[in-house]
Amino acid sequence: MIQKYVLAIDLGGTKIRVALVSQNGRILSSIRQSSNAGKGKKHVIENMVSIIKLLLKKSNKDIHDIKSISMAIAGINDIKRGIVTTAPNLPGWHGVNIRSMAQEKFGLTAYLINDATAAALGEHRLGAGVGYKNLVYLTVSTGIGGGLVIDNKLYSGEDGAAGELGHMKVLANGPRCNCGKEGCLEALSSGSAMTRKAIDAINNGRNSILLKLCDNDINKVTAEMIAAAARKGDDLSSEIISEASYYLGIGLSNLINIFNPDVIVIGGGLSKMGAMYLGPAKKTAKQIAFRLPAARVKIVKSKLGDNAGLIGAALYAFGQK
Amino acid sequence: MIQKYVLAIDLGGTKIRVALVSQNGRILSSIRQSSNAGKGKKHVIENMVSIIKLLLKKSNKDIHDIKSISMAIAGINDIKRGIVTTAPNLPGWHGVNIRSMAQEKFGLTAYLINDATAAALGEHRLGAGVGYKNLVYLTVSTGIGGGLVIDNKLYSGEDGAAGELGHMKVLANGPRCNCGKEGCLEALSSGSAMTRKAIDAINNGRNSILLKLCDNDINKVTAEMIAAAARKGDDLSSEIISEASYYLGIGLSNLINIFNPDVIVIGGGLSKMGAMYLGPAKKTAKQIAFRLPAARVKIVKSKLGDNAGLIGAALYAFGQK
Repeated sequence: MIQKYVLAIDLGGTKIRVALVSQNGRILSSIRQSSNAGKGKKHVIENMVSIIKLLLKKSNKDIHDIKSISMAIAGINDIKRGIVTTAPNLPGWHGVNIRSMAQEKFGLTAYLINDATAAALGEHRLGAGVGYKNLVYLTVSTGIGGGLVIDNKLYSGEDGAAGELGHMKVLANGPRCNCGKEGCLEALSSGSAMTRKAIDAINNGRNSILLKLCDNDINKVTAEMIAAAARKGDDLSSEIISEASYYLGIGLSNLINIFNPDVIVIGGGLSKMGAMYLGPAKKTAKQIAFRLPAARVKIVKSKLGDNAGLIGAALYAFGQK
Repeated sequence: MIQKYVLAIDLGGTKIRVALVSQNGRILSSIRQSSNAGKGKKHVIENMVSIIKLLLKKSNKDIHDIKSISMAIAGINDIKRGIVTTAPNLPGWHGVNIRSMAQEKFGLTAYLINDATAAALGEHRLGAGVGYKNLVYLTVSTGIGGGLVIDNKLYSGEDGAAGELGHMKVLANGPRCNCGKEGCLEALSSGSAMTRKAIDAINNGRNSILLKLCDNDINKVTAEMIAAAARKGDDLSSEIISEASYYLGIGLSNLINIFNPDVIVIGGGLSKMGAMYLGPAKKTAKQIAFRLPAARVKIVKSKLGDNAGLIGAALYAFGQK
C-alpha cells in the first residue's frame, strides 16, 4: 500500500507553514512564508492554495498521495463545523468556513483545529511533553496561544475553542489586546505587546538604541530587535522584556494553580529569547503559585519548535476516523 | 448485605459539615457547625472527631456501618499522600497528614480531596451539572474554590491540587489575598474581600447603614449584611457588590476562554445573593469572553447547595477501589 500523507497547514499571525507529514509525524517536505495576514483573508487563502500546489510539485506528489488536509489556524475555531469564528491576529477572519472551502477546492477530507492546540498535541506525542499525563502548552510570539492535554488526551472543549490561554485577563482594565478586550496575557507579554511598548516609549521621547536598530523607523521594531538591544545593555529594552516576563510569570502561576500540570511547554518565537525572558517568568510563576503544584510542574521549552503545529495538526488528522 | 455509608466531611473556612451518605448520594443524617477555623488546627480536628461520634450516635449507627471516611477540605491537598499542604482559609493547616490521623483514629480507609473539587463531582453526578461533559464549578463564600470535570471525569491534576480557580490572578498587584499573594479572584470577589472593603471604607469615615446592621462594630460585618444593606439602597454596599461582581465576571470569562465548558456551576454562600451579584457577573463574563465559548456555556446556580461537597466527597470515596 502506498503511504499517504496529511497535508498540514499552520497559519498564524506572522507565518504560514505547509507540510506533508507522515503517520509517524515525520515531515517529508515543507514550505514556510510570511502569512501577510494584514492583506486580509482573501489574499491569505489564495496564497495558501498556491503554497499547497507548490509543495506537492516540489515533493513530487499529487493529490492522490494525500489522505486529508489538516488546518491549524490561530483563531477561535468551531472545529465541529469547520469555521474560524474570529481570529485576533488574522484580520478579517470572522465566520470563515475554511473547512468546506478546502474540501471543495481539493476534494479531500479537511480538518480545522487551533494552531496552539495542534502544537500541544505535537509536543505531547513527539516533543517536550512525551511521557507526561497533563500538559499545558503556551506559544508566545506575535500573540499568545495555548493548548491542553488532559489525561493523555487533547482537550479542546465542546466547540474546539478551549485553551485560549493568551486571552486570560491577568490585569483587569490593563492594556488593550488584539482581541479587543483589556488586560489579556497577550496584551502584556507577547511580541506585539513588547513592540507596542517600544513604539510608545520612543514616540514619547525615550532614549534607546532601538531606533538605530530599526533604521530610525520605530514602527518597524520587532521583538527580536528588542532582545538584541537588551543584550547590548539598552535600558528601555531590558525594562520591556522584564515587564513582559513578569506578566508571563503571573499567567504561568495561574495555569499551575488551575491545572496542577506535570509539564508546561513553551513554544513560539519569543521562547527563543531564552533565559532573559523565560528565566524570570519561571521564577515568578514558581514563587506565586501554590507550593505543591509549583514543585510538581516542569516548565520547559518546546522541542519541536516551529514544526509543533504542523506535526500536531497531522497527528490530529491521522487520529480521526 | 448491610448497606454501608461513607462518612463524609466538608471542612471550609466558615462551616464544617459531617454526614452519612449512601452509595446513591443520599444523605442519611448530617450535622453542621461553625468550623471555628480561627482557633487553629488542633481545635478543629478535635471538634471534627466529636461531631463524627455525635453523628453516629444520632443516626443509631456505629463504625461497622461505615465503609470509609472521605474528607473534603478547603486546602491545597496532596491527595495521593493524604496531606493538606496549605489552606488559605484554615489557619495552621500546613503539612497536615489528616488522612493517616483519620485512619488511625477510626481504623477505616480514609480519603482526602479538595472541598470544591468534591462539590464539582457532586453537582456533575446529581446536581446542576448532570448531563454535561465539561463542567467548571466555582464556590464563592469566605473564599473562592473551584473544581473541574473534564470529559465526564473529575480532574484534579497530578497531586489533587488542580482547580484553585479562586487563586487565579485577575488583577496583578491587586489587593492582598488570604493566600498571601496579590490580585487573586478571591481577594476581589469573595465574601472576605467584600467585608474587608466595607471595614476599610467605614474606618475611612464613609457613611453607610452597615454600621447599624452590625451593631456599631464594623469588624462584625458579613457579606449577608452587605447584601441586606444594598437591598435597602445603601450606596457603599451596592458599590462593593458591584465591584466584586465585576471581577467575578472577569474570572468567569477567563474560565470560559480556557475551558470552553458546557456549564459553569456556581455554589457557595454568595451565590445566594442571587441576581444582584451573579447577574452582572454573568453579563460581564459573556461580554468579555470570546463569542463562541460564551454562547456555548450555561452559567447556573448550584443545585445541591450546601450538600454538594458532602455528596461529592462520598461519591468520590465510593468510586475508589
